Amino acid sequence: MSLETEPFRTLLEDLAFVVFDVLGQPGRADHEPLIEAAVRLAADRFATHAAKSDANEPTWDGERLHLIPEIGEALKEFIDGGFLAAPFPESDGGLGLPYTVYQSMMAAFQAANPGTCAYPFLTSAAANLLRVFGNESQKERFMRPMVEGRFFGTMCLSEPHAGSSLADLRCRAEPQPDGTFHLVGDKMWISAGEHELSETIVHLVLARLPDAPAGVRGISLFLVPRNHVGEDGTVGARNGVSLIGLNHKMGYRGAVNTALAFGAESPAVGELVGAPHQGLAAMFHMMNEARIGVGLGAAMIGYSGYRVSLAYARDRVQGRHPDHKGGAAVPIVEHADVRRMLLTQKVYAEGGMSLTLYCARLVDEAEDATDDASRQRCEDLLAMLTPIAKAWPSEHGPIANDLAIQVFGGSGYTRDYPVERYYRDNRLNPIHEGTNGVQGLDLLGRKVLLHRGRAFTRLASEIQSSIERATGFDELAADRDGLGHALGLVVETTGILGKAAASGQVRLALANATEYLHMLGHVVVGWMWLEQAMAAIKGRDAGTTAADFAAGKIHASRFFCRYELPRVDRQAALLNTLDDTTLTMPDAGF
Amino acid sequence: MSLETEPFRTLLEDLAFVVFDVLGQPGRADHEPLIEAAVRLAADRFATHAAKSDANEPTWDGERLHLIPEIGEALKEFIDGGFLAAPFPESDGGLGLPYTVYQSMMAAFQAANPGTCAYPFLTSAAANLLRVFGNESQKERFMRPMVEGRFFGTMCLSEPHAGSSLADLRCRAEPQPDGTFHLVGDKMWISAGEHELSETIVHLVLARLPDAPAGVRGISLFLVPRNHVGEDGTVGARNGVSLIGLNHKMGYRGAVNTALAFGAESPAVGELVGAPHQGLAAMFHMMNEARIGVGLGAAMIGYSGYRVSLAYARDRVQGRHPDHKGGAAVPIVEHADVRRMLLTQKVYAEGGMSLTLYCARLVDEAEDATDDASRQRCEDLLAMLTPIAKAWPSEHGPIANDLAIQVFGGSGYTRDYPVERYYRDNRLNPIHEGTNGVQGLDLLGRKVLLHRGRAFTRLASEIQSSIERATGFDELAADRDGLGHALGLVVETTGILGKAAASGQVRLALANATEYLHMLGHVVVGWMWLEQAMAAIKGRDAGTTAADFAAGKIHASRFFCRYELPRVDRQAALLNTLDDTTLTMPDAGF
Repeated sequence: MSLETEPFRTLLEDLAFVVFDVLGQPGRADHEPLIEAAVRLAADRFATHAAKSDANEPTWDGERLHLIPEIGEALKEFIDGGFLAAPFPESDGGLGLPYTVYQSMMAAFQAANPGTCAYPFLTSAAANLLRVFGNESQKERFMRPMVEGRFFGTMCLSEPHAGSSLADLRCRAEPQPDGTFHLVGDKMWISAGEHELSETIVHLVLARLPDAPAGVRGISLFLVPRNHVGEDGTVGARNGVSLIGLNHKMGYRGAVNTALAFGAESPAVGELVGAPHQGLAAMFHMMNEARIGVGLGAAMIGYSGYRVSLAYARDRVQGRHPDHKGGAAVPIVEHADVRRMLLTQKVYAEGGMSLTLYCARLVDEAEDATDDASRQRCEDLLAMLTPIAKAWPSEHGPIANDLAIQVFGGSGYTRDYPVERYYRDNRLNPIHEGTNGVQGLDLLGRKVLLHRGRAFTRLASEIQSSIERATGFDELAADRDGLGHALGLVVETTGILGKAAASGQVRLALANATEYLHMLGHVVVGWMWLEQAMAAIKGRDAGTTAADFAAGKIHASRFFCRYELPRVDRQAALLNTLDDTTLTMPDAGF
Repeated sequence: MSLETEPFRTLLEDLAFVVFDVLGQPGRADHEPLIEAAVRLAADRFATHAAKSDANEPTWDGERLHLIPEIGEALKEFIDGGFLAAPFPESDGGLGLPYTVYQSMMAAFQAANPGTCAYPFLTSAAANLLRVFGNESQKERFMRPMVEGRFFGTMCLSEPHAGSSLADLRCRAEPQPDGTFHLVGDKMWISAGEHELSETIVHLVLARLPDAPAGVRGISLFLVPRNHVGEDGTVGARNGVSLIGLNHKMGYRGAVNTALAFGAESPAVGELVGAPHQGLAAMFHMMNEARIGVGLGAAMIGYSGYRVSLAYARDRVQGRHPDHKGGAAVPIVEHADVRRMLLTQKVYAEGGMSLTLYCARLVDEAEDATDDASRQRCEDLLAMLTPIAKAWPSEHGPIANDLAIQVFGGSGYTRDYPVERYYRDNRLNPIHEGTNGVQGLDLLGRKVLLHRGRAFTRLASEIQSSIERATGFDELAADRDGLGHALGLVVETTGILGKAAASGQVRLALANATEYLHMLGHVVVGWMWLEQAMAAIKGRDAGTTAADFAAGKIHASRFFCRYELPRVDRQAALLNTLDDTTLTMPDAGF
């Protein structure tokens, strides 16, 4: 049974439901066919080489980097199909699609092959950064060819001694008389840092100018192409960027991950992007969307595991019901514990999809806002939701993949089926683009306190409005009450932690920031499930949503409410006491 | 930084504390040096080739199976050191060591290299089965050479269509005029099914006799050597057992895992072991100890991840305290969230070690019991604890390994460090020797109901006695109260589920058997932590346990009580309502 393409039988329906029915994205007639095209290409060209690129990771022969040819072939179709250009304004050579529609299309590729996705995703993110912060020449010479897929991009943040801690970056940029800069230093964990998929690679590099203040306020952003690019756009000889080594990862193996040296052998000539010392702000403009993208990817790998293990469970006949042991063996999908594992996967994967696509919708709404209040609303919600959209799916997607293996039993532990690869691939997501621990500190240490709690209050009141709307749905009474209870707890806990931080107990208030992140995350995803259930009932009653599909959504909401949401009580009890157990553990006691 | 041998700096102290101080194993002066020798050999010969055997999995060239030579070299030292013979009675060529001491030694090898361990562990289990159920000739010709390490063994239960469901086994045994049997059928997931590490391989095979009743009551046990073995013990030509293929696993790669065909090319001649149709009972005699061994292994891989990530966290300098952002960067072990991840690993790994070694101690106590009541007590406790000892560490060990990766960040996701391998290796443990779902059904569907709940009541009263003993320890007041509360909940829940099952609601009562397994598991491990904390205080006050070590144990008990045990409330609430959400999910709604 080849199951690699199984998720793509249902993916369009699942994405379209979230995007159009739940989130109310307009333009369904125009946009759904685009998502359908993405799903088809993902199934036909991306899922098909995922196992092969996992088994044949990139190699470096000292002069050239080798990837399996299917990666380049798939990316050519991706570019030719307009998927790279999709989110850029038409004035910049793009298709001007709404970000929500773009992310729904990318969801399909993530479900199919996250490794191959790394190349265009980084290119898109880098090009978008140049679109916002680059000068006209940079946009013309670099952004345009990236939107066209002729140049690819990277993001060079981490260094060997500093991953999460950007304040400690050491890479230097030395000003030259001609206005350029020579970059000097090593960069680590650079995905897509070397390959032959494009005419050149545009590295966006964080580095310090000679007069830079210490810490994060002294970081500037530079554009350093692998090859020199002339004023007329001609790609010339290699610039001083050299490959130090490849990182050999547990998963995501199709995405080459490199350590790069700038200026080690010859000058690495770069250009300043934006204002001096403003590099981190620029990078974070991109980073927020990248974080939502990581969450979406984690949810989609979770989705693939769910659909593949469901197909297996429907096919595999084994065991009997405990009250009918003399009967015939049944498909394992009938066993209660298998159903629990499938439902858990469903609520994690589809809950994460809903949350991250909702964030994409907020990006569109902020862009389209015609007044400050509407824009501020979206920005406040995005500020709160971005760390959750990154961390929640990247915590729970891998758990979903773990359950997919368990549904398979021994077979799931072998390389004959894709679920063990999903499990290895998804394990990256809690780490990159800011570890989940960093997301917890961002949420509780910065976002919750932002504008005296305005963003938190906004989020809580949005959830409260949904709960009030749900009073119109009798089938959802228990879900609504459960979410209301959980929301009340998180409001109380947030108040307690906020007061502690304000009174100077910062270290103690933040000691369990990760627990807080998970707690608020569960409330937010419970909200997403309530929204999905309401949309399902509306669609079912209107005859626009299939009854079975709607029943599945309503039941999954109930499952989330009964099996998942109650953990919020435990988290509140722990957080409200300002528990210091981790801080007071004696070092020598470990 | 090579960290492969890091766990072995502290392992002897950790094992000795559990075995001698907590469990009260007598003979410390004699036995501790044996455990020390195991720790040393594990570090010097097992840990050292774990990465290599992971990267070079077994291959079959059509005629011979190839393993890296370090596996055979390590096993030779293991056998020469007496570790294989250790648990067998002296009358059978063994060293007659207590099972608890034997398992503590095996713990060290599991921590070092679970793949290489598979060969001697299966041999030991198979030999032990022959010791109990074999006739004199079988013991002389097969068990003895296995105890000596000249023959290795396997367990052949699963078939391609039946893993968890042994009732559906199809493999046939055809009686021959000379009293032997010809085995016909395929067996799946056979670890150590082919190799050149021993003179021959003794397969213990479940199969059906021609007159066998259907289901599990019609299964007999057969001994089928890979090579014919003469009356005088001479190893002759190959028997009709052929390798169909190798399973390519995500981890545990050093342990070759095979599909075998019996009687496909030539007759597979076997002997009946024990009485006809009694094969499953015999196999379960072995299986119970194998399940405890799986749990111990899972805890030990968790332990290795804990110690390795702790060493990394003490070494890696990055980031600042949130209330001291202008200060110098600190070792990441100082960050609250890293401490949370380390403490969680500690309570999972050392909690699992405690539980599984306690089970080993009960095996010894049952063996040594001089009266029926004492023996029954041990057997009742083992009946209840075996599914928990298998499932709890195998659920939580992998979570510990997940956290070890997270402590490392990006480095943990690469093959430069052992933590990604631990994560892949440990993922097998929730699957084999009965999936954790099967353990839940065994616990709630059989063990809890056994002798009208006698075994459950016995377990609850043992936990209650510990709680009462703990009143003498002021430092543990909160831990004691927390455990008492959780125990009360699980007693109540067990009553509710038992009544439902008795009143015919079997399917509903068992629908959340896995939740029940985790719930009771947390109570039992909370108990283990209370016992560890009491032993630590006693040792500290008597001057026999180092103060730092004791402080770590006491603090870890507190952590378990605050962070882990409260989840029992949520589980009770779900279970007490006989929640039917999984059963009522419409099939088409998935």
